[in-house]
Amino acid sequence: MKRSLGARIIIGATPVWIVGTYDSTGKPNVMAAAWVGVCCSEPPCVAVSLRKATYTYGNIQHREAFTVSLPPAQFVKEADYFGIASGRDVDKFSAAHLTPVKSELVDAPYVQEFPLVLECKLLHTIELGLHTQFIGEILDVKAEESVLGEKQKPQVEKIDPFFFHTATLGYYKIGGYLGKAFSIGKD
Amino acid sequence: MKRSLGARIIIGATPVWIVGTYDSTGKPNVMAAAWVGVCCSEPPCVAVSLRKATYTYGNIQHREAFTVSLPPAQFVKEADYFGIASGRDVDKFSAAHLTPVKSELVDAPYVQEFPLVLECKLLHTIELGLHTQFIGEILDVKAEESVLGEKQKPQVEKIDPFFFHTATLGYYKIGGYLGKAFSIGKD
Repeated sequence: MKRSLGARIIIGATPVWIVGTYDSTGKPNVMAAAWVGVCCSEPPCVAVSLRKATYTYGNIQHREAFTVSLPPAQFVKEADYFGIASGRDVDKFSAAHLTPVKSELVDAPYVQEFPLVLECKLLHTIELGLHTQFIGEILDVKAEESVLGEKQKPQVEKIDPFFFHTATLGYYKIGGYLGKAFSIGKD
Repeated sequence: MKRSLGARIIIGATPVWIVGTYDSTGKPNVMAAAWVGVCCSEPPCVAVSLRKATYTYGNIQHREAFTVSLPPAQFVKEADYFGIASGRDVDKFSAAHLTPVKSELVDAPYVQEFPLVLECKLLHTIELGLHTQFIGEILDVKAEESVLGEKQKPQVEKIDPFFFHTATLGYYKIGGYLGKAFSIGKD
């Protein structure tokens, strides 16, 4: 029997992404975002939704670029901090003892210590209400050699991403392998 | 040292959602989608990106509604099948021995056997390229009593969602608890 829980954001769990931007003075900033997802394969695009109150919102508008750095589970505290503090008040990279690297392709920094990075050029800005959706075209993906497996493919066990569960505000690791997509359903 | 992998969709992992729609004859259909995410808190909205070639694409355009049913890991084969077969050719509910339930709020069906359901009214249609992004306002979330924990909050361990890793086409379960958001980063 299903019970109505109302018009709210309740899902299973959603990945945590770290969005990197420069402010108007060139100071690198990072924030944690969970209202995120892939939205197109060609051109390859990701969507990041932010409240106007965030420092990153203005940075993306001005620089028309951002990066997505994927934090591995060992950096869950730093990632959570990136979602609590504001770049208006502090230098989050310094506070978290992490290293900003300037992208060679877009006007935004990424986190050196995180193993997977997407460099994105702003394509669309869509006003939805409390959140604004920034759609960025992925110009390149960069990965640490250490997370690459056969055929130079990143291995999820090595990227070790984590997820946010909205209903209980919990962070969770990735778990065990279930099977291969476009394959196990053929039976 | 980071290596360039090119302009491609490579992320950690993304949740698998089952999108429910009716076709023009009223036949219920479901498809698996991974280019998905929350995109706004107020109004509460989710974004689902689909190729024009999918049967669901036309169904959403005509009915201006869809549901998102969250498949638990025990149904990974059925979910994968929903991403392989087309509703043009088969009745996927029948083939998978699952039960369509008509939403009372929107003109779309959901999967009775899946524990969490979002009922969505189409708000925006955004052409991005190969994919079209459908943004739906969540009018209600319904959950099985069996997945609710304290204060009637859905527990992620009971929803038991799973994820798709793009680079290797693998499905993965949710793993262990890492900590509480907006809390563990305060140190």
